[in-house]
Amino acid sequence: MDYIGKSNLRVDAYAKVTGNAKYSADLAPRDAYIAKVLHSTIANGEVVSMDVSEAKKVPGVIGVFTCFDVPDVEFPTAGHPWSVEESHQDIADRKLLNKRVRLYGDDIAAVVAEDNVACDRALKLIKVEYKEYPVHTDARSMLNDKDAPVLHPNWRKDNIIAHTAFNSSEYFNYDEVKKNAITKYGEENLIEVVKNVKTPRISHSHIELPVSYAYVDANGKVTVVASTQIPHIGRRVIAQALNIPWGKVRVIKPYIGGGFGNKQDMLYEPLNAWLSVKCGGHPVLLEISREETIVCTRTRHPMDGDLRALATKDGRLLCRELINYSTNGGYAAHGHSITAKCAGIFKNLYRDELGVRSEAYTVWTNAPTSAAMRAYGVPQAVSFAETLTDDICVKGGFDPYKFRMDNICDENTSAGGAMFYTYGLKKCMEIGAEKIGWTKKREEYKNQTGPIRRGIGMCCFIYQTAVAPIALETSTVRMILNQDGSMQLSIGATEIGQGADTAFTQICAESTGISPDKVFIMSSQDTDVTPFDTGAYGSRQTYVTGNSIKECGILFKKKICEYALTMEEEKSLAGKKIDDLDVFENYVVDKNTKEKLVSLEKLSTTAFYSFKHNQHITAEKTTDITTNTFASGCTFVDVEVDMPLGIINIKDIISVHDSGTLINPALATAQVHGGMSMSLGYGMSEELILDPKTGKPYNDNLLEYKIPTAMDSPDFKVEFVVMKDPTGGYGNKALGEPPTVAPAVAIRNAVLNATGIGFNEFPLTAQRLVHEFKEKGMI
Amino acid sequence: MDYIGKSNLRVDAYAKVTGNAKYSADLAPRDAYIAKVLHSTIANGEVVSMDVSEAKKVPGVIGVFTCFDVPDVEFPTAGHPWSVEESHQDIADRKLLNKRVRLYGDDIAAVVAEDNVACDRALKLIKVEYKEYPVHTDARSMLNDKDAPVLHPNWRKDNIIAHTAFNSSEYFNYDEVKKNAITKYGEENLIEVVKNVKTPRISHSHIELPVSYAYVDANGKVTVVASTQIPHIGRRVIAQALNIPWGKVRVIKPYIGGGFGNKQDMLYEPLNAWLSVKCGGHPVLLEISREETIVCTRTRHPMDGDLRALATKDGRLLCRELINYSTNGGYAAHGHSITAKCAGIFKNLYRDELGVRSEAYTVWTNAPTSAAMRAYGVPQAVSFAETLTDDICVKGGFDPYKFRMDNICDENTSAGGAMFYTYGLKKCMEIGAEKIGWTKKREEYKNQTGPIRRGIGMCCFIYQTAVAPIALETSTVRMILNQDGSMQLSIGATEIGQGADTAFTQICAESTGISPDKVFIMSSQDTDVTPFDTGAYGSRQTYVTGNSIKECGILFKKKICEYALTMEEEKSLAGKKIDDLDVFENYVVDKNTKEKLVSLEKLSTTAFYSFKHNQHITAEKTTDITTNTFASGCTFVDVEVDMPLGIINIKDIISVHDSGTLINPALATAQVHGGMSMSLGYGMSEELILDPKTGKPYNDNLLEYKIPTAMDSPDFKVEFVVMKDPTGGYGNKALGEPPTVAPAVAIRNAVLNATGIGFNEFPLTAQRLVHEFKEKGMI
Repeated sequence: MDYIGKSNLRVDAYAKVTGNAKYSADLAPRDAYIAKVLHSTIANGEVVSMDVSEAKKVPGVIGVFTCFDVPDVEFPTAGHPWSVEESHQDIADRKLLNKRVRLYGDDIAAVVAEDNVACDRALKLIKVEYKEYPVHTDARSMLNDKDAPVLHPNWRKDNIIAHTAFNSSEYFNYDEVKKNAITKYGEENLIEVVKNVKTPRISHSHIELPVSYAYVDANGKVTVVASTQIPHIGRRVIAQALNIPWGKVRVIKPYIGGGFGNKQDMLYEPLNAWLSVKCGGHPVLLEISREETIVCTRTRHPMDGDLRALATKDGRLLCRELINYSTNGGYAAHGHSITAKCAGIFKNLYRDELGVRSEAYTVWTNAPTSAAMRAYGVPQAVSFAETLTDDICVKGGFDPYKFRMDNICDENTSAGGAMFYTYGLKKCMEIGAEKIGWTKKREEYKNQTGPIRRGIGMCCFIYQTAVAPIALETSTVRMILNQDGSMQLSIGATEIGQGADTAFTQICAESTGISPDKVFIMSSQDTDVTPFDTGAYGSRQTYVTGNSIKECGILFKKKICEYALTMEEEKSLAGKKIDDLDVFENYVVDKNTKEKLVSLEKLSTTAFYSFKHNQHITAEKTTDITTNTFASGCTFVDVEVDMPLGIINIKDIISVHDSGTLINPALATAQVHGGMSMSLGYGMSEELILDPKTGKPYNDNLLEYKIPTAMDSPDFKVEFVVMKDPTGGYGNKALGEPPTVAPAVAIRNAVLNATGIGFNEFPLTAQRLVHEFKEKGMI
Repeated sequence: MDYIGKSNLRVDAYAKVTGNAKYSADLAPRDAYIAKVLHSTIANGEVVSMDVSEAKKVPGVIGVFTCFDVPDVEFPTAGHPWSVEESHQDIADRKLLNKRVRLYGDDIAAVVAEDNVACDRALKLIKVEYKEYPVHTDARSMLNDKDAPVLHPNWRKDNIIAHTAFNSSEYFNYDEVKKNAITKYGEENLIEVVKNVKTPRISHSHIELPVSYAYVDANGKVTVVASTQIPHIGRRVIAQALNIPWGKVRVIKPYIGGGFGNKQDMLYEPLNAWLSVKCGGHPVLLEISREETIVCTRTRHPMDGDLRALATKDGRLLCRELINYSTNGGYAAHGHSITAKCAGIFKNLYRDELGVRSEAYTVWTNAPTSAAMRAYGVPQAVSFAETLTDDICVKGGFDPYKFRMDNICDENTSAGGAMFYTYGLKKCMEIGAEKIGWTKKREEYKNQTGPIRRGIGMCCFIYQTAVAPIALETSTVRMILNQDGSMQLSIGATEIGQGADTAFTQICAESTGISPDKVFIMSSQDTDVTPFDTGAYGSRQTYVTGNSIKECGILFKKKICEYALTMEEEKSLAGKKIDDLDVFENYVVDKNTKEKLVSLEKLSTTAFYSFKHNQHITAEKTTDITTNTFASGCTFVDVEVDMPLGIINIKDIISVHDSGTLINPALATAQVHGGMSMSLGYGMSEELILDPKTGKPYNDNLLEYKIPTAMDSPDFKVEFVVMKDPTGGYGNKALGEPPTVAPAVAIRNAVLNATGIGFNEFPLTAQRLVHEFKEKGMI
């Protein structure tokens, strides 16, 4: 390949370093009004009345809008493609502002003013009278209270969004299987682990906060310029929320400073749109603060899983069971799909000889709304599965590496339409073990005593690429030949900081023969202009959109070659047929000899300006994808645990990924670095804590909610097992989300190796470590 | 037709009335630097040296750039499509800033500062040393001075841009033909008129001044947001001026407050682009003042024509001759094409029995640069031809209406690839004569005496539609189906205030079957995104782009119908074939019965989201036009001349147009109103006057340069002769420019009728009238 597999500089590198790349807030018109949201100070109840008279008197206030003013329409917020079948549509369970308050910080009113100061003053003057109900901030507590108020009576009377079970077979029953196993192997030859694992409520912590501005454009369209991963889906959601035709909404996405799934939901964009409409279409800017982001946007699901597993003493995994209670907060957002994905990955990660059960509840609670976050339930799945594995190994005295080699899913794994078209997991494990010095260190770290101990741990994962065939995977790409032989690449997929535009540019160059410096990707999406694509999520873009770029590029190249054949004045082309031609390094060339026949510069100028045969060469193509290939990988980590201080020092860490062809190795490595860093937070420091009685957050800011900084980061090592996947456009498969799955659990398993203590509640904070070591009398 | 021929409200009516429509200056980033240009205070010479040291010291000044700093590249500015043949390319005769000064107000330096005040202060501190040359502000004076300094020695040594002659036959010679005619008819049976006619230097006087801002975008593209009629051509010109690849330039055109041809040239956009590059790509705003606009942008060509004509005493026009000296100012801009068009129309307007000669010089002078202005040389052509006709009629005692009926061009006229595919001129004359009461009033106004006299006059014209086959006519259109069955219409043609977007919307509705309220036209062009089209000029857009919209619409509709056939779940479509289907009023219908089969709303939602057959329906099509059809028409006017005051009061005025089908009759009428108003200025008040010795303007502002206001405007009456032209997309032909051709000359001829004085210098100002009446002893 000519342009793929090269570590090109990011196409937006200079623009981002110089500040030339414009973000939503940079672009807001100077006369935009400022909007702010009033949030509820109770977590469950009703707004009985609201007095806005004093707020309206504040000079500069344009309008005060309350939950009593909004359209009586409930809408869904999830960034999923629409389904024409009602049963597959997302849950519509919220209004623009909610009279029925379901979480602390629910949106109950908004002020629009000429400036920030007037806006803040007015917000403080709104008087609210509530009726309060009892609060439940986690799934189990909600389910245990039979008298708990029903949060969404239109949908369910029991606050359960969904309850599903993935079993290995219809008749699988853990207790029966266990009974039979005892009969067959004898109880003395079996090991069972029974435990509970809890995962944290995590804030995405993207640098750019959710921000948008809305106005009614000259065409009368309600236009929202927003930091969103999903402009085309957002268009539909906003239209639903405002109850207007979908074509009357326009969403524009400038550069974005990270999303990590939080911006795969419509957050405040629908409200922003409505506020502008209420203000006569004047631009209204709505910037969400970090505090609001942490509590009022979305979080990773805290999950609480009851686990059981049975293995033979000679190291064969017989069966496993997970009963998972997933806390979904006040609104459904992505509904059950994240918990379901968690259940699926838990089930599929191992070959359980006698079967597996993965049962899952997603429950509405009075907590911040949980929804998509990078890796979409899989970090939790692996927290369940891979802590279980190490606990089995401890109990059975197995080497965790060998146990996994014997029991982990193999190349024949197939589930929900996904399969391994290429399988690199065991190769990843080999490389990781080799690089970290597994065998030597496992030996070395045996029988440690004293306050500071070393340990080594590992964790594996598998990951679906994109969301087909469960959900729609479709992408359209448009290509335009410029007058000088350079080209425009127009896509609906979104660069959100991950480097997608650079990967797309290289894919485009590969498929068109136009060198990357002459491929100008249009990074900003505008739903009125840009081809349709569902957006950035599910590690789908390089796979789905990438394939669409490839297909469109082939069509574009064909059109260029066809035009070349009309250039009768070019003697070099005389007698050539379409099958003789190719485009290579900005020339139409002879396909076999690579002889340069005519430059694209000359060809395009002629095509634009010829009297004889005038054509503005463009190509546009919709490609849908119905395949889904598993990516996989593992993390190995070597830690030093300072037991009296409760501190885990990472001495060495390596992630090895099976992601197919790397479009851009440097960017792929950076993607893994970012994911590993994010997983350190999940593993060791990040957790949004709520007062269980009031639902009020204790740490809704970045002083008290701790994300890893550069100072906390070890030297991240990354390796790849490169195999060309037959379903990826150029052999590539998922890499966006997978890097954030395994490191946290590898660390937990390394701490287990170091101290003998298997922590079952993430993150492994100093407090939890010290508490546990004290309990066990170790310090 | 369902949607064409209806007087729909302008699609931008609300946006423009409410201020929602954004113009270039509205959109400039708040941190943009301000640029201003230093203009020469001499009209011919060289900048010897420039001292910018004091200017650079002004706080807030970012940079001072002089004619010694700019790239050593001469570039063409005309808004013509590029030609791949060098001989057809425009004259490249200026730099971004000019050391060699050719007109008073030439651009010699520019200041970029943080604000207006710093910019103005710095401009004043630049010290310039000149070497001065003698000045010639008109073509004849330039040609008469054999020692005149050569302005563009790279191009011509004689200051003549071009000299051409259109003769009726190769051997036509006026003097010989006259000699032969005398022999044949006898001198006593012939009338000859010999005279000179001068037309004024006119300023376009668009409300929105030339304004642009430039920056380097995140893709590294030099981006110019500009009030221009020709974004795609501008892209090429800017690239040439900066000597960079054409694809590295991006031009964006927001709403525009009028252009009238002035914005069919690249004015300050290339300089603006370069200044931004010099300032590290930071946004730089360059707003041109009214004074600069009048002197330093473009004007209508002042022409100075020597005329002769021979007719028989029984009213047969035998032959005519025009030798026209056209003053082109300091730079070539559109070169000879405007004077050539003038020559062509002069030649073709009448059937000269024995032939015609139309000779033309276009001459570089030390005057403001003349270039395109609404009707592109034709007002001058008609000033020559139609004053000549009335002078013949006076001399021969002919009724000007009857003389024209007998001698004017007929339906067989064909010239330069243009012909009358439909011919309505004589019908227009009939209607105009009838409406104004020609016969009765001609009789009534005979033998007037006293200081206040009435007169009636008329003037005819013909006008080519678009510029083919002489120049390239090409247009691409893109259509996008939205998720709710509404659509986007994307074009490269430009709405510049004339109502093009509304006409395009109706044409689109007609061709697609999607009602105009669901057709969203994208009014702003962006050369990175928008399909290629050469822009707004030559009365071409409704004809060329309109045809392209029609063709694209047919393709789009076909794609919609093809999709419908894949919707197996729609029983109404069972058994249908593609030829059975049509789209009508937002439904796929049975072509014959108009039975509604499926709504576009349902079809589009299905197309976007179906798992079975997923397609984002778009269509894109390039259409080139090689035909050219003459439009035609006439103006009749009834005036009262107050001789002592020199005032012409228009008592009645009517223009009658043969423009094919009217896409939107109300807008067509408004277009004619505007053109008539503009012609009043040409006829009675507008003239930019220069000091012939220094080239310095006397009236470079709207206090002293007089455009007609609403107070000066009579009730404009408009009639149309509607014939469906076979070459227009829906039978339409030129209407943008023609309305501004005839009224001025009709007024002149009415004054002749009232007073017996045939004025031969436009405009007919009070000073000229009073002077002449005094000379003749009439007052």
